[in-house]
Amino acid sequence: MAAKSRFVLQRLFNGLRTQSLWLQSSKLQSVLTVIFFPGPSSLSFRTHTCGELRSDHVGDKVTLCGWVQYLRQDLFVILRDFTGLTQILIPQEESASGLKSALCDLTVESVIQVTGTVRLRPSGQENKGMPTGEIEVLAENVEIFNICQKLPFEIKDFVKKSESLRMQYRYLDLRSSQMQQNLRLRSQVVMKMRDYLCNVQGFVDVETPTLFKRTPGGAKEFVVPSREPGMFYSLPQSPQQFKQLLMVAGVDRYFQIARCYRDEGSKPDRQPEFTQVDIEMSFVEQAGIMSLVEGLLQHSWPPEKGPIKVPFHTMKYEEAMRDYGVDKPDTRFNMKLIDLSEVFSASDVEFLRSALSKPGGTVQAICVPGGAVSTGRSIWWKHFKHRNHLLLSVMTVLRPLLGHLRLQSAQLLESSGVTLRDPSAFHFLWVVDFPLFLPKEDKPEELESAHHPFTAPLPEDSQLLYTEPHKVRGQHYDLVLNGSEIGGGSIRIHKAAEQHHVLKNILKEDTTLLSHLLEALDSGAPPHGGIALGLDRLISIMVGANSIRDVIAFPKSFRGHDLMSRAPDSLSEEELNAYHISVKWPTNDSLTKMNERLPQSDLWLGFNS
Amino acid sequence: MAAKSRFVLQRLFNGLRTQSLWLQSSKLQSVLTVIFFPGPSSLSFRTHTCGELRSDHVGDKVTLCGWVQYLRQDLFVILRDFTGLTQILIPQEESASGLKSALCDLTVESVIQVTGTVRLRPSGQENKGMPTGEIEVLAENVEIFNICQKLPFEIKDFVKKSESLRMQYRYLDLRSSQMQQNLRLRSQVVMKMRDYLCNVQGFVDVETPTLFKRTPGGAKEFVVPSREPGMFYSLPQSPQQFKQLLMVAGVDRYFQIARCYRDEGSKPDRQPEFTQVDIEMSFVEQAGIMSLVEGLLQHSWPPEKGPIKVPFHTMKYEEAMRDYGVDKPDTRFNMKLIDLSEVFSASDVEFLRSALSKPGGTVQAICVPGGAVSTGRSIWWKHFKHRNHLLLSVMTVLRPLLGHLRLQSAQLLESSGVTLRDPSAFHFLWVVDFPLFLPKEDKPEELESAHHPFTAPLPEDSQLLYTEPHKVRGQHYDLVLNGSEIGGGSIRIHKAAEQHHVLKNILKEDTTLLSHLLEALDSGAPPHGGIALGLDRLISIMVGANSIRDVIAFPKSFRGHDLMSRAPDSLSEEELNAYHISVKWPTNDSLTKMNERLPQSDLWLGFNS
Repeated sequence: MAAKSRFVLQRLFNGLRTQSLWLQSSKLQSVLTVIFFPGPSSLSFRTHTCGELRSDHVGDKVTLCGWVQYLRQDLFVILRDFTGLTQILIPQEESASGLKSALCDLTVESVIQVTGTVRLRPSGQENKGMPTGEIEVLAENVEIFNICQKLPFEIKDFVKKSESLRMQYRYLDLRSSQMQQNLRLRSQVVMKMRDYLCNVQGFVDVETPTLFKRTPGGAKEFVVPSREPGMFYSLPQSPQQFKQLLMVAGVDRYFQIARCYRDEGSKPDRQPEFTQVDIEMSFVEQAGIMSLVEGLLQHSWPPEKGPIKVPFHTMKYEEAMRDYGVDKPDTRFNMKLIDLSEVFSASDVEFLRSALSKPGGTVQAICVPGGAVSTGRSIWWKHFKHRNHLLLSVMTVLRPLLGHLRLQSAQLLESSGVTLRDPSAFHFLWVVDFPLFLPKEDKPEELESAHHPFTAPLPEDSQLLYTEPHKVRGQHYDLVLNGSEIGGGSIRIHKAAEQHHVLKNILKEDTTLLSHLLEALDSGAPPHGGIALGLDRLISIMVGANSIRDVIAFPKSFRGHDLMSRAPDSLSEEELNAYHISVKWPTNDSLTKMNERLPQSDLWLGFNS
Repeated sequence: MAAKSRFVLQRLFNGLRTQSLWLQSSKLQSVLTVIFFPGPSSLSFRTHTCGELRSDHVGDKVTLCGWVQYLRQDLFVILRDFTGLTQILIPQEESASGLKSALCDLTVESVIQVTGTVRLRPSGQENKGMPTGEIEVLAENVEIFNICQKLPFEIKDFVKKSESLRMQYRYLDLRSSQMQQNLRLRSQVVMKMRDYLCNVQGFVDVETPTLFKRTPGGAKEFVVPSREPGMFYSLPQSPQQFKQLLMVAGVDRYFQIARCYRDEGSKPDRQPEFTQVDIEMSFVEQAGIMSLVEGLLQHSWPPEKGPIKVPFHTMKYEEAMRDYGVDKPDTRFNMKLIDLSEVFSASDVEFLRSALSKPGGTVQAICVPGGAVSTGRSIWWKHFKHRNHLLLSVMTVLRPLLGHLRLQSAQLLESSGVTLRDPSAFHFLWVVDFPLFLPKEDKPEELESAHHPFTAPLPEDSQLLYTEPHKVRGQHYDLVLNGSEIGGGSIRIHKAAEQHHVLKNILKEDTTLLSHLLEALDSGAPPHGGIALGLDRLISIMVGANSIRDVIAFPKSFRGHDLMSRAPDSLSEEELNAYHISVKWPTNDSLTKMNERLPQSDLWLGFNS
């Protein structure tokens, strides 16, 4: 059997491959490619992919494998694989009638292997819109691997599908060229990130456990019963503790593309499991981590998306809140918040005057170029110079509202045809100098961590930890891309006494849950810091996807369901017995309450909605 | 502040790095390294690592960061980081008394930064056993980052620690040079594997979900309660279904360094979570996958472990069982099983004659060179030519026992000083042509999959699926290294009808649990196959570790405990309520039974024990 001997040759010559060996003769090359050369057609039944053949290949005998995209006039089979399409010419002569009927009987999406000879398409029949449009392959032999029996929808990019149908038949949806591109681009970006961290910067890729212990305040952690009665693991939201322990362990530079878990059923565009680029290093300051991340993104950024400039712009938290009303400003357009308190200091408009007279009362505005947005407590004003409109707000605490209106205005303007944000632009921004603690929403007299309890204070604020903790700023930095937070990190507390003070005296946490970390800090912990980048979000912005689901191979629905396999699922009592648990079925009352909290249907919500 | 401006420069010049720029002058280079060059000291407080300085650096002003290994005679601090040790000379003159007392007061394992000048050690004081033994650094300045307060054991490789203590203080244990090397080698091997798969062979790194649905027969899967009453996810043992669905999706070549979960508390040297190099490709035969894996291991094998030769030797399952009594033969030494039925056909030894007269009765032996092992049903025999001993067994079904005795004999011989296996040798072996089904242990009249239900039969055996399924051999291949199974894979069934027949008629499984996979096979599935390599096991053999725990940063104990953080842990009723479960506390009776099944203590068992 020819295939068998080819494989034997492949295995024998596996060691002979060299980068420098490259043959000029295209025919000899195509024969030798099968044996010697790595690449997408090595070790495979095919000699070429469906997107590869050009007029250079005319006369070559080739073998292609793929899916039947469509048949045309009993003359052509259009064959598809992940690289593109090739037109297969069905021979019409009587002697090839068996081959002809085999090909003509194919259903779309059937899987075949075709051997034939590359030829130029007849003059005038070239397809300039198709990379292989100059040629076609005259079929000489076909092997039918699988006949496609059923198809809930067509695999053409222009067929609009409901998203739940796409998810139920995800293995078909992934055949679309868009999803193929998204998954491949994600793989390549991650590979380049690893190359940068490992090979350029000397980081060590360390895997950390996901079956772990409940963390203090880890209300959103999935639990996993063990075979010991009453004992549970938790699936952690991030490898935070492990990465810090690795620094105490002297690993010096750690990274991991880490699977993380967060159980928050009702938030849109969140997945119960997600991926972060997790980084930690020792003997470093904030600027060092920022520089590392800038280098990382520059190194891994897809060239076709245009270069990105470093260093990224840096903005203080206060400045972001003042100018944009949000801690993750979309800096692709202006329309900053403007303080007009001075202008209106003598206003006779009643609600403005009353607002200004209160403590913290200001008049804030954004400038909406040529637009018109109507809302409750705002007024419209002809702009002095530019004939624009102003949108007004009246209290400092309303800044976030105004920040939100700024984004809504931008959307409205764009939907009415005004070009405000360049869709191909990528605006990176560091936001720094966050407060270390914030008042708890339900108990404002108590403090909680703005990010997490391991963040170190700014050196100049560290004494305030013991006197006025609410004034302390942290060595925390967020990375924002086009108005979305794509990463966050900090320099960590590396002294046990300081960490203990924060946990016990400021946050009133039970420190026994973190005794191993406190002990570790007392056993020779270096100064260290790190960052975590949200990979799903980053890639989705990179490719311009509407949702992170478009860059995840098998995402879950809004309610956390896998619509293809129907997970989660019920278990037998016997299976639960092994874990010493039983289901506590809710009463009618609590069921009603629960349903009120749950989303009413398994709707697909868009990105950032 | 000098550090600040250095970081600003680093960030500004981040984009200017090029591989080709390399300066000859060591001094200029060391200054510019901080700004321009990537590597282990970029972006860091240090200018060099503790293992880096040589006589070339004499006169350079350097900054080192690390842990105090020990102090000597109030004259030297030996400073350690992940690269090695450097001797710091404590200045003795009166003007430096502050610096001297700061250094002399240090406890071991404290973390410091030292700035000073490199100088040659006085003649005769060089340490040839130490890579930096030609030089020392005369301290000019010290910053003490952290004083080590407590230490349950010393961080020196020669201090023997109990393994449970090592695990409880894993962050200290990881400071040993052996663990540092293991983690770094693992990271580098994985990086090269990715390079080969992604960049050389065109594979796509795709992440698949770990919150999934219970698989049929998945008795060893952890379960994860969801917020919907009675609904549970499972943590899968491998991405088997997803990788096959990705082939149906046209991804063509998939790989993932995948976290997998298996709940089998009582088996030694297993971890509840482990990592496999998971590979699947379309349009490929068995030989293609084998060739791919050979290329992968050759590409990623650490050069210091010596080259490995491909192709690996291949052995049929039958041959392995016949010659070695096991399906994962250790081929580093001979001592094969020998059939001596002929020799003893006229024996007057009663138990041999009686054995030979029974159906399937044979006399099997292994040749133990110069050794002596005593066991029950065996006799010793002077060898005809080589004055060796023979160990005999008498039934075909006892082959595995003899295979086990073969390994035990080898261990005994080696412990008595006979060199049998080269400890630096790596013997790879493919085992192929396994039976597709085996009789169930408890119900021998029923069949179960020898590996898993998705394995395709050998083409020449495929008709037997419908007539004599117990005779069918599968397209399955195991990869064995030094007698350990480090991988297994197969060509998969790609036709829905065949898969349905195997599941329903042969294995009597409930096919509705796999309806999505059967539907997928009917929607245009290509021929495909793959493999999974056990990464933890592979790396542990590579580095010669006794246990996979020595190549995992934070392993769990025999009973699945994290001894550092004390996971698993109990949960409050409130926390369980969110998942609609309650603990079913065992009765006294069932508790006794359970304790009998559980290991009596959290013992640490050795590798392969």
